[in-house]
Amino acid sequence: MNKNSSNTMALAPNTSNKRETVCIFGTGDFGRALGHKMIQSGYPVVYGSRSTQISNLIPKDAEVLGHAEAAQKAAIIIIAIQRQHYNFLTPLAEVLRGKVLVDISNNLKLNQYPESNAEHLAQLLPGSKVVKAFNTVSAWALQSGTLDASRQVFVCGDDVAAKEMVMNIVRALGLTPVDKGSLLAAQEIENYPLQLFPMWKFPIFLSLGLTAFFFLYCVVLDIIYTYIYEKNDFSFFIAITIPNRVCPVMALILLALVYLPGIFAAIIQLYRGTKYRRFPDWLDKWMQCRKQLGLIALAFASLHAVFTLVTPLRAFASWRTGKGIISQALNNKTEPLDHTNAWLSDSYLALGILGFFLFVLLGITSLPSVSNNVNWREFRFVQSKLGYLALIMCTAHTLVYGGKWFLSPSAYKWYLPNIYILSLIVPCAVLVVKFVLIFPCIDKRLTQIRQGWERNPKYSKQSNHVINKSAV
Amino acid sequence: MNKNSSNTMALAPNTSNKRETVCIFGTGDFGRALGHKMIQSGYPVVYGSRSTQISNLIPKDAEVLGHAEAAQKAAIIIIAIQRQHYNFLTPLAEVLRGKVLVDISNNLKLNQYPESNAEHLAQLLPGSKVVKAFNTVSAWALQSGTLDASRQVFVCGDDVAAKEMVMNIVRALGLTPVDKGSLLAAQEIENYPLQLFPMWKFPIFLSLGLTAFFFLYCVVLDIIYTYIYEKNDFSFFIAITIPNRVCPVMALILLALVYLPGIFAAIIQLYRGTKYRRFPDWLDKWMQCRKQLGLIALAFASLHAVFTLVTPLRAFASWRTGKGIISQALNNKTEPLDHTNAWLSDSYLALGILGFFLFVLLGITSLPSVSNNVNWREFRFVQSKLGYLALIMCTAHTLVYGGKWFLSPSAYKWYLPNIYILSLIVPCAVLVVKFVLIFPCIDKRLTQIRQGWERNPKYSKQSNHVINKSAV
Amino acid sequence: MNKNSSNTMALAPNTSNKRETVCIFGTGDFGRALGHKMIQSGYPVVYGSRSTQISNLIPKDAEVLGHAEAAQKAAIIIIAIQRQHYNFLTPLAEVLRGKVLVDISNNLKLNQYPESNAEHLAQLLPGSKVVKAFNTVSAWALQSGTLDASRQVFVCGDDVAAKEMVMNIVRALGLTPVDKGSLLAAQEIENYPLQLFPMWKFPIFLSLGLTAFFFLYCVVLDIIYTYIYEKNDFSFFIAITIPNRVCPVMALILLALVYLPGIFAAIIQLYRGTKYRRFPDWLDKWMQCRKQLGLIALAFASLHAVFTLVTPLRAFASWRTGKGIISQALNNKTEPLDHTNAWLSDSYLALGILGFFLFVLLGITSLPSVSNNVNWREFRFVQSKLGYLALIMCTAHTLVYGGKWFLSPSAYKWYLPNIYILSLIVPCAVLVVKFVLIFPCIDKRLTQIRQGWERNPKYSKQSNHVINKSAV
Repeated sequence: MNKNSSNTMALAPNTSNKRETVCIFGTGDFGRALGHKMIQSGYPVVYGSRSTQISNLIPKDAEVLGHAEAAQKAAIIIIAIQRQHYNFLTPLAEVLRGKVLVDISNNLKLNQYPESNAEHLAQLLPGSKVVKAFNTVSAWALQSGTLDASRQVFVCGDDVAAKEMVMNIVRALGLTPVDKGSLLAAQEIENYPLQLFPMWKFPIFLSLGLTAFFFLYCVVLDIIYTYIYEKNDFSFFIAITIPNRVCPVMALILLALVYLPGIFAAIIQLYRGTKYRRFPDWLDKWMQCRKQLGLIALAFASLHAVFTLVTPLRAFASWRTGKGIISQALNNKTEPLDHTNAWLSDSYLALGILGFFLFVLLGITSLPSVSNNVNWREFRFVQSKLGYLALIMCTAHTLVYGGKWFLSPSAYKWYLPNIYILSLIVPCAVLVVKFVLIFPCIDKRLTQIRQGWERNPKYSKQSNHVINKSAV
Repeated sequence: MNKNSSNTMALAPNTSNKRETVCIFGTGDFGRALGHKMIQSGYPVVYGSRSTQISNLIPKDAEVLGHAEAAQKAAIIIIAIQRQHYNFLTPLAEVLRGKVLVDISNNLKLNQYPESNAEHLAQLLPGSKVVKAFNTVSAWALQSGTLDASRQVFVCGDDVAAKEMVMNIVRALGLTPVDKGSLLAAQEIENYPLQLFPMWKFPIFLSLGLTAFFFLYCVVLDIIYTYIYEKNDFSFFIAITIPNRVCPVMALILLALVYLPGIFAAIIQLYRGTKYRRFPDWLDKWMQCRKQLGLIALAFASLHAVFTLVTPLRAFASWRTGKGIISQALNNKTEPLDHTNAWLSDSYLALGILGFFLFVLLGITSLPSVSNNVNWREFRFVQSKLGYLALIMCTAHTLVYGGKWFLSPSAYKWYLPNIYILSLIVPCAVLVVKFVLIFPCIDKRLTQIRQGWERNPKYSKQSNHVINKSAV
Repeated sequence: MNKNSSNTMALAPNTSNKRETVCIFGTGDFGRALGHKMIQSGYPVVYGSRSTQISNLIPKDAEVLGHAEAAQKAAIIIIAIQRQHYNFLTPLAEVLRGKVLVDISNNLKLNQYPESNAEHLAQLLPGSKVVKAFNTVSAWALQSGTLDASRQVFVCGDDVAAKEMVMNIVRALGLTPVDKGSLLAAQEIENYPLQLFPMWKFPIFLSLGLTAFFFLYCVVLDIIYTYIYEKNDFSFFIAITIPNRVCPVMALILLALVYLPGIFAAIIQLYRGTKYRRFPDWLDKWMQCRKQLGLIALAFASLHAVFTLVTPLRAFASWRTGKGIISQALNNKTEPLDHTNAWLSDSYLALGILGFFLFVLLGITSLPSVSNNVNWREFRFVQSKLGYLALIMCTAHTLVYGGKWFLSPSAYKWYLPNIYILSLIVPCAVLVVKFVLIFPCIDKRLTQIRQGWERNPKYSKQSNHVINKSAV
């Protein structure tokens, strides 16, 4: 491109001074906002409209003509009208032949029509070159210039040159075009602005379900049991005590669930003796939402940290402290420092703090701008090495804190195990299997498999010179 | 482009191997740094200088010639000299005819000259194609390669091809060009590096003013009043107690001020019965600094959280705790747990923690890299739904905490209301009006208006097929 | 480009509908993943393989041919085979003449071979145009679409047009090409994915060394000394008490080390009377890892904050509190509030909170996405003005907290100074010298030097019209 320009232009470029004219069909909100922005960026804009009366809302420097006249003035026509009105374009088919039509429409529901709006348009006007673009941008953001959530513009289309023309306009408006391939991608692009955190759905529902279960479990054991057998009303535990029991349990389990699919993947690869077969679907999906699971775990861990730190501010805590001290004072004695207790209390606090610290590091590394600036080796080092270290620390934190209750029979109210015991099952299982997997003999075999070695190479015929860029 | 290249090059590209030569006028800091970086990126560089003695600071591979000879060697000339020396270029007008001149100069003050440096250059040399670029990049960052704050290079110019050539150089240097349109934008681009958080100015001054007011209010009521009427010297309250009273008040008021303009906008739209008229200027400006207001509110909320958590570490707090316990011990009695108190204390703590948690979530979502990765629906969900939830939680936190003082006459020292009461006015007003606005009958009308419906469509003539991409 | 397209295409673009064919040599992991992604983006893909039996792992729409036939079909050939097999390409030299060969290989070790793989390939096939690209992308990420850590693709090559063609493919795959210049950069690009936080190495080793030293220092003075002379076993101090003594010391020293090189640079510039000479190497390196030093300091400060906040939860703390209160109760007296103590305790807490708050602000500003959105003036304002303010606050926090121990002889166990005294040396030195440097007479001279003035301009011959874009 560089070269090209300077070749054709020799040492003094003398191509013309203007950008090509863009035509916009439709003078609605988005048509006007886009036209305004384009004029700002130096494009002559002509509107195609039924009524050519100039509304005072249309940008001043734009021309307003009938549809056919407007279309003749430009190579690119932006179709800023709703899908249900596309039919009125068919009479214009001759005028639009060979032109680039930019479909910017959105639907109100996911997969509202069998085919995407852009494909529908392409079928109506087979002589035109349809490109899907701009539907992810908000009219309001275009006008006000505060493009916080939408610098990326997804573009797709079957004609490469037409797509390139549209992508150049996108760049000229200060936005980032993302080429999503052929017009088949239009459905996905039209669904995109209607999505609400699709990757987060499963992790969030899983967490909500588990949280509800553990919350009820604690209410039964800590409030109802106490009320029935000890006649004590601890209903106010619902506000802080029980949330602060559920949050660490959820954080630990979810963090373990981040590393569990990796364990499954390793076992499946070892069993099959090859990496050249797809994982089952559920495992694939699970592996793709590990980041979300980890971030929700971090949220629970943060809540646990804050709930714990406010403990001394609670009326209940100061009442309990006071009671303990007064009973000592009334007995006229000062208990000596219990060294075992001091060790235990300081250890689990220190383990928790370090585990949480590593956890927050993991969270920061998963910020898009940070992870964009590290290479794969660094990303894997942080997410795998530091992640396992965080899991070990948090499991140890729970073990040291809850350890004293494991063997005490009072921990088994109504023969139900304490919530700490439940929370340790998954993390301990993950850590034990991972410990087995890093035994040299197993680890060596796994590394071989991941570099392309196969125990039984009947599944696929591989060329000999496989580049060993292993993954996961 | 793609297509183009492979067309002209058939299946074996054979264009020449070199980038075009770039000429730099001026061997100052920035000229040298830019030359160095360009040579690294494969551009032959020739310097135009009065003295052609080669300084040891000029990059080794660069040629140094007189201005006229240097200019003849290249199509692009970077003018790395100060505006006050531009006059010496006029004798070179013939040599520079048709060349691309890149103005990289900066001023020392905002709007220092009536017209921008680039426009001044274009007037001096009407035969040349002036492009403004690179002025936002720091020489030191170019040299050291640590381009933390300046990957974006704003480019503007009247000649599209010339601008494209400069943008290609920008890309080749590993930077991101941003096309800002015609040379009219040069003034804005020249002002940019001189700006100091322009969007933050109003929110920061507003916060400082309010903080000062509330601080003095607390000093008067908590220190001076106590000193006069109770003869107690609580001057040390200035360090923690009073800041921890002002911070939550500021956080709550500023958070409410984030949602207040949206309420005003809705009322104005309902009253006017159309969205096709501009909001008053003050409302526009207010809406554009909502993000800044929210982040300052988050800062105050964070300070409040930390100030609260250090409470048990304060000498004053342990003295007060000790006094309470000792008085019980000396009276030989243990007070039973006050359940109402336990409920109240745990509730406001839990509400505060959850509100703060949602608040931090909002803050994380407003990080540029995170908000770039969500679509508008998700962005609005977080900023509007979760934001209102945070406001509700924080208001409830304040109500539960301060509730007991509302009716107590001791809270009205010198007939002045307690600071908690003042802090609740704006948030409660916002929540009440918002509650009214989401009544089905009103909400439906508002949605219609935002989709383009007009009660009295005399204001603008709309084409019938308006695309209903609503905003806000 | 824009212009170009619309010129050749008039108002109805009619270039062909397809992207150019891409050939991939090698059907290993990465070859398959890349082929898959390219087909998705609309490129016809043809594989060159020894065995032309179609494996079920190769993307369905791809053709598989022998190497020579495959190469003839495309202008771009991606060499997805390992370096040790490159020799088999030499017989194909005639077929590959003039083609663009994309070397995507990686090594297993840093600088494994004397020359880079890409340069090796270029030597084997001098008639082809070798471009290095894609080696920083992970096969797994390409397949799963979760490109968290690798949107950037470094590209280098001697032929500009060939490089441009490859960069267009990179863009079409939804990745960001970064032009790193000529093929000489291939070594650096091949080393990149093998690096593990190279900029962090020195700061991390420095911190680990200092932390170990201070930890042992505290163990000796707080545990061993106490055990020997007071027969008290405080070994549990290892978990929280001593870490919470080491962390603030490390945070303060590292924060001061961030500002120390700037002080040195200013002194060197003042002494030399010019800025036109390079700083010594150690100073250059030190200045380039200031961000890393600052972030590690922030990590220590955060740990200090959390360690401090958990204090009231420790068994040791509640035992100590109880002991104090009980001894008062048994003596039948209540101590009055010590106002000096209340002032001191509240002051150092407030100073610490504000210092930490500013510190966190600095940390947030150094997130890539945030620092990309501020200009240099704003970046310097935050990092320099707010940074010094944070250093002043943290130093004052330490002085107020540790002040009482400076003069007490009991602080000098075994004639060793307390750790607080050690921690204050560097920050106080930095602040004192900085205070001297901002004296008007010195500051004016320094500003002159940084704007290009020289006391003794024999070192370099400068052109008169130096643009005064000063740095640092």
